[in-house]
Amino acid sequence: MADTASPSAPSTLVITAHAGDFVWRAGGAIALAASRGEQVTIACLTYGERGESARAWREGKSLDEIKAIRRDEAERAAATLGAEVRFFDAGDYPLRETPELVDQLVGVYRETQPDVVLTHPPHDPYNADHPAACRMALEARILAQAIGYPAEGDPLGAPPVFYFEPHQPEVCDFTPEVLLDITDVFATKRAAMECLSAQQHLWEYYTDLGKRRGVQLKRNAGPNLGFPTTTYGEAYMRPYPQVTERLA
Amino acid sequence: MADTASPSAPSTLVITAHAGDFVWRAGGAIALAASRGEQVTIACLTYGERGESARAWREGKSLDEIKAIRRDEAERAAATLGAEVRFFDAGDYPLRETPELVDQLVGVYRETQPDVVLTHPPHDPYNADHPAACRMALEARILAQAIGYPAEGDPLGAPPVFYFEPHQPEVCDFTPEVLLDITDVFATKRAAMECLSAQQHLWEYYTDLGKRRGVQLKRNAGPNLGFPTTTYGEAYMRPYPQVTERLA
Amino acid sequence: MADTASPSAPSTLVITAHAGDFVWRAGGAIALAASRGEQVTIACLTYGERGESARAWREGKSLDEIKAIRRDEAERAAATLGAEVRFFDAGDYPLRETPELVDQLVGVYRETQPDVVLTHPPHDPYNADHPAACRMALEARILAQAIGYPAEGDPLGAPPVFYFEPHQPEVCDFTPEVLLDITDVFATKRAAMECLSAQQHLWEYYTDLGKRRGVQLKRNAGPNLGFPTTTYGEAYMRPYPQVTERLA
Amino acid sequence: MADTASPSAPSTLVITAHAGDFVWRAGGAIALAASRGEQVTIACLTYGERGESARAWREGKSLDEIKAIRRDEAERAAATLGAEVRFFDAGDYPLRETPELVDQLVGVYRETQPDVVLTHPPHDPYNADHPAACRMALEARILAQAIGYPAEGDPLGAPPVFYFEPHQPEVCDFTPEVLLDITDVFATKRAAMECLSAQQHLWEYYTDLGKRRGVQLKRNAGPNLGFPTTTYGEAYMRPYPQVTERLA
Amino acid sequence: MADTASPSAPSTLVITAHAGDFVWRAGGAIALAASRGEQVTIACLTYGERGESARAWREGKSLDEIKAIRRDEAERAAATLGAEVRFFDAGDYPLRETPELVDQLVGVYRETQPDVVLTHPPHDPYNADHPAACRMALEARILAQAIGYPAEGDPLGAPPVFYFEPHQPEVCDFTPEVLLDITDVFATKRAAMECLSAQQHLWEYYTDLGKRRGVQLKRNAGPNLGFPTTTYGEAYMRPYPQVTERLA
Amino acid sequence: MADTASPSAPSTLVITAHAGDFVWRAGGAIALAASRGEQVTIACLTYGERGESARAWREGKSLDEIKAIRRDEAERAAATLGAEVRFFDAGDYPLRETPELVDQLVGVYRETQPDVVLTHPPHDPYNADHPAACRMALEARILAQAIGYPAEGDPLGAPPVFYFEPHQPEVCDFTPEVLLDITDVFATKRAAMECLSAQQHLWEYYTDLGKRRGVQLKRNAGPNLGFPTTTYGEAYMRPYPQVTERLA
Repeated sequence: MADTASPSAPSTLVITAHAGDFVWRAGGAIALAASRGEQVTIACLTYGERGESARAWREGKSLDEIKAIRRDEAERAAATLGAEVRFFDAGDYPLRETPELVDQLVGVYRETQPDVVLTHPPHDPYNADHPAACRMALEARILAQAIGYPAEGDPLGAPPVFYFEPHQPEVCDFTPEVLLDITDVFATKRAAMECLSAQQHLWEYYTDLGKRRGVQLKRNAGPNLGFPTTTYGEAYMRPYPQVTERLA
Repeated sequence: MADTASPSAPSTLVITAHAGDFVWRAGGAIALAASRGEQVTIACLTYGERGESARAWREGKSLDEIKAIRRDEAERAAATLGAEVRFFDAGDYPLRETPELVDQLVGVYRETQPDVVLTHPPHDPYNADHPAACRMALEARILAQAIGYPAEGDPLGAPPVFYFEPHQPEVCDFTPEVLLDITDVFATKRAAMECLSAQQHLWEYYTDLGKRRGVQLKRNAGPNLGFPTTTYGEAYMRPYPQVTERLA
Repeated sequence: MADTASPSAPSTLVITAHAGDFVWRAGGAIALAASRGEQVTIACLTYGERGESARAWREGKSLDEIKAIRRDEAERAAATLGAEVRFFDAGDYPLRETPELVDQLVGVYRETQPDVVLTHPPHDPYNADHPAACRMALEARILAQAIGYPAEGDPLGAPPVFYFEPHQPEVCDFTPEVLLDITDVFATKRAAMECLSAQQHLWEYYTDLGKRRGVQLKRNAGPNLGFPTTTYGEAYMRPYPQVTERLA
Repeated sequence: MADTASPSAPSTLVITAHAGDFVWRAGGAIALAASRGEQVTIACLTYGERGESARAWREGKSLDEIKAIRRDEAERAAATLGAEVRFFDAGDYPLRETPELVDQLVGVYRETQPDVVLTHPPHDPYNADHPAACRMALEARILAQAIGYPAEGDPLGAPPVFYFEPHQPEVCDFTPEVLLDITDVFATKRAAMECLSAQQHLWEYYTDLGKRRGVQLKRNAGPNLGFPTTTYGEAYMRPYPQVTERLA
Repeated sequence: MADTASPSAPSTLVITAHAGDFVWRAGGAIALAASRGEQVTIACLTYGERGESARAWREGKSLDEIKAIRRDEAERAAATLGAEVRFFDAGDYPLRETPELVDQLVGVYRETQPDVVLTHPPHDPYNADHPAACRMALEARILAQAIGYPAEGDPLGAPPVFYFEPHQPEVCDFTPEVLLDITDVFATKRAAMECLSAQQHLWEYYTDLGKRRGVQLKRNAGPNLGFPTTTYGEAYMRPYPQVTERLA
Repeated sequence: MADTASPSAPSTLVITAHAGDFVWRAGGAIALAASRGEQVTIACLTYGERGESARAWREGKSLDEIKAIRRDEAERAAATLGAEVRFFDAGDYPLRETPELVDQLVGVYRETQPDVVLTHPPHDPYNADHPAACRMALEARILAQAIGYPAEGDPLGAPPVFYFEPHQPEVCDFTPEVLLDITDVFATKRAAMECLSAQQHLWEYYTDLGKRRGVQLKRNAGPNLGFPTTTYGEAYMRPYPQVTERLA
């Protein structure tokens, strides 16, 4: 079982509610993994067609047009970051939890055998789809671990889960527990953000956030030796304990 | 500054209230660091002469005799683990926070320039000395970072802090956030525990705890590939965010 | 959009599980708003026919009779307070969350365009209908904000939400964050309470609670200048940050 | 009503997700109640056929075979403890909350009129079935209290609820609030554990946990007078306030 | 040791900041214990001369007069409840934590060997003396347990601690964890309250609170069999786990 | 008492640890109050001479020189904002809590009779002086309320307290509970920031933070009608309940 459960190239699975989420919130982590030659698979449960496409609706686009636009943007952003994106078109606002969707995610877990899982945090009073995606991501991970669960592929191990940062972290019980240095790939993340042309106002917002997390990263990083003037960071939480062979 | 602030050999500083604490709670982490050729310095604020030497008091030993016994035990345990121990003889039960003791700890921080700091967690309704040691350890770390603080040596960077596990974790708000694999050095930790001859009942207790944390470690470690039948672990908390270049 | 989204007369929307809830818990806030000439709409998801009508069941009334009694009482209480009440007859004990009921609430939000929203808090270990009503109220508010959500009317802004006080506040994680002075309208609230003739034992209970909150209000209100001997209050929580132009 | 609502012999109701849960987590409490001549009813919502029978799946057993094995083991364990077990075969991994299953539990509550209720705690990031069982147990208890709820039997009072200990307590927000001395019946609990032959690795694990809780029990029990060398304990939480006529 | 550590008559120790605290907050528990023939000792750290005697100051009384009045009132209230009260005159507003005062409390613990300890909860944003008294009560209890602590008398066991209710419970993180039925002794508590003639406005306030806690008590007490129409209660929290031989 | 306790012009009291704190964290609130013609008094407990003057120490300045520089900067910043600043020179890194300093603050409270109080939040793992200032500010406020406390002036009422935002809010348990619109005075705040010439790197940092809080403010402010393109905000927490006559 070990052979198939832990393939040679590490694998990351990102499960998100809407088409743009993986760019703003985890683009740096994705680009870093891709830059190390690892496989990254993004499971987009919806296109964000109703809840995160206000401008397109105001312009009078149809539902199908909006989905197509969002899909195209997300595919280009994923390609820029070096990742594969899959769409589930489950319908947003509201994204409803269903046994079928959870079962599909079990299949993705078993197929991709991720070493790392990224998803939304469980609380967000501004958006009910994000917590719904989180709950399904966590439930599917547990089911994929059980040999008795009837799905293709080998049972999953226990890959660590990281919650990426929501739009209003302090009101979502989000505390940065891990600060990831994304300076080396920030230009790539910015390029991916610019694929999302309808949300131009967020480009600067998330660039500023990257700087802010970079400042915190340096404040928590011991001697500031070697950090560039502008360091970029992304913040994550861990719902499970870290397992390590060395305290650092 | 970088040269002196981050010497070539990594350094660990352990700040504890009583003479035995570092053995039961962090012996594995200490032995692991020492086994990698790193320097480990243990600051024992008291001998635990009043609060953790019940048997010696029942045997009618004097205060000075008890201190000497505890010091000797702790020195042998530290040597077994490969660490240096320093005693501050500040008086236990109660251990009182004083500006002078905090200032001494600032000196130790500046001298040892630790890359990693281990200490007690801040809540313990069964023991007031442990939180007092924690508060002084954290305050001295902050003061040591300030160039304007009048003490010898270079200002400190921001080394990560880890809280080790208290005796009754669930009642002390202690949640394992980091599970450290200490299997390779567990025999050394056990040998160090056996230096504390007056507390023989704790040898098995902490061996059992090591197994228990080892079981959890395997449950959180992805495919169980490669773990020995009995894996030993130690649990830690992080009061500051982890800084990293890779999610894992 | 501004014209329709923010009509000249301010509007309050109260979403509750059972027919009596708005009286005991928010009668003062409702009467205050009405006394200022504002529109108040109460959405009663159920009549409380199974879970909060014990006396009627003991008297052998039928389900339809009980619903009619509760409806009549609630309508008279709402009229006393100066508010409009709408019934959804969704069935209580248990009140089940359904997409259809949420969609109906979206319609109410879009129609009434509330400036203030009142509902139950999300935790209540004594009653599962109250949290269910809260979850639907919050989800519908988010959906009503999205221009892409297919419902009549203009998208909603972001009206502040207030949780009113549950029956056993301390066991429901309820902390008074806002103390509303209802002294001027307390007689009206009392009159509305007396419309609920089957729950006479609660009249005194909630009058006492009003006094208790009034005492706290005075304790938190700076110089006690100008408060009458008996001040009545109601307590609320805020799930979203307060937006203001002045700290006070 | 008092006659039927509180029959002379006290009654305990245990609601669990999987067939083995009641043994590992509450076997001591069950054996204690049975040893006092009380009635104990265990409601097993599933056999744990998919999620907690890894060994049987690896051995190539069929779903029906696995259910039969688990049922047989659980019946023997319950008999050993002195309790009656009922199976609902609701399907595990995932155990889905349904109105029908909740309604069946209401029936059990009304029939058994428990004085004490035991179930899983509401948080468990390693297992989604446990929280689902908890939510249904709590909801059914509330519904059973309402005279208006259409089910056989008399309405329930307000029996205290105790959460038993999950496998990884600290990561499940589980804090021991009640330490139950099970020393007198520990041999019985051990015998019941040994009925679960497929999970032999857990026999020692839960014996060690029993000792560990016993050590804590003595630490919190005033003068250690009268405790045997090895005291065994089980830990519980209370979601509702304790009602008492004496502080102790 | 057992003989002296656990004398035949149970003993309760109440540690409070100000002269009136034990009456309002724990008068029922004290009267209940006394009514069972148990010894109750109240340690009043201050007379509440500055912080809780506003009326006397407004009347122009001197500091010494106020202390004498408060002492007299407290002695009469204690006698009414059946308890002994001791004054430490440590000075209030602010009550300062000192090693000497803690040491005096260690002496009281060793002398009275309490089976139950009552004190203030640790958080109170309206009064800094209450948390200070709590911290000293808890620290002295720990020190009194250590055989090595230099004080008269036998080391203490681990008597359970109960926090009594503060004036504004919800803002002090106070959740009723134990509801004590004080109906049988409420008339005595009321008589003791009436000894505090300067705080007449609190007589009704705390009578109302007693009723309110009584209502909650009945709501959490299973079948309401046998409770009188008006039941009085007091609420407490437990900082340490309950140790028991029976879940109830 | 009312006349003196609540003078006609509203008054704000700001209590901070270091000379620059009031500018970065509360400059907008101060400028707003001043722009309404209100009196603002800033109590600076220290100059921040050791802990927040790294650049001056690196340049070889003496302690007295650094204090003078910091004082001058703070006075110019306060004047820019329209406030009066008072220095207590209590010594920073560490700022020690003393009865004398608390007593001085009582005097300031009684003299200025504030309607609003601003100070640091109580948790900051990066800086021990900030929580120390908070504790003294809260304790002095309570003491100033007691008529029996021996200080000049009339007793204080119960002015609301607001905690301003720390440097790393999410790691300091800081959740924005109040979002203050400071757009109208942001230019003044920026001018005050530029008085702190040694900390030029923070000018942009806190301008970015102002924008970020402005974005959140608009997200929580109902219809976005009337907000300028760039809205600036400051975030605050409330340790005490808000008292109001209107929910909004």
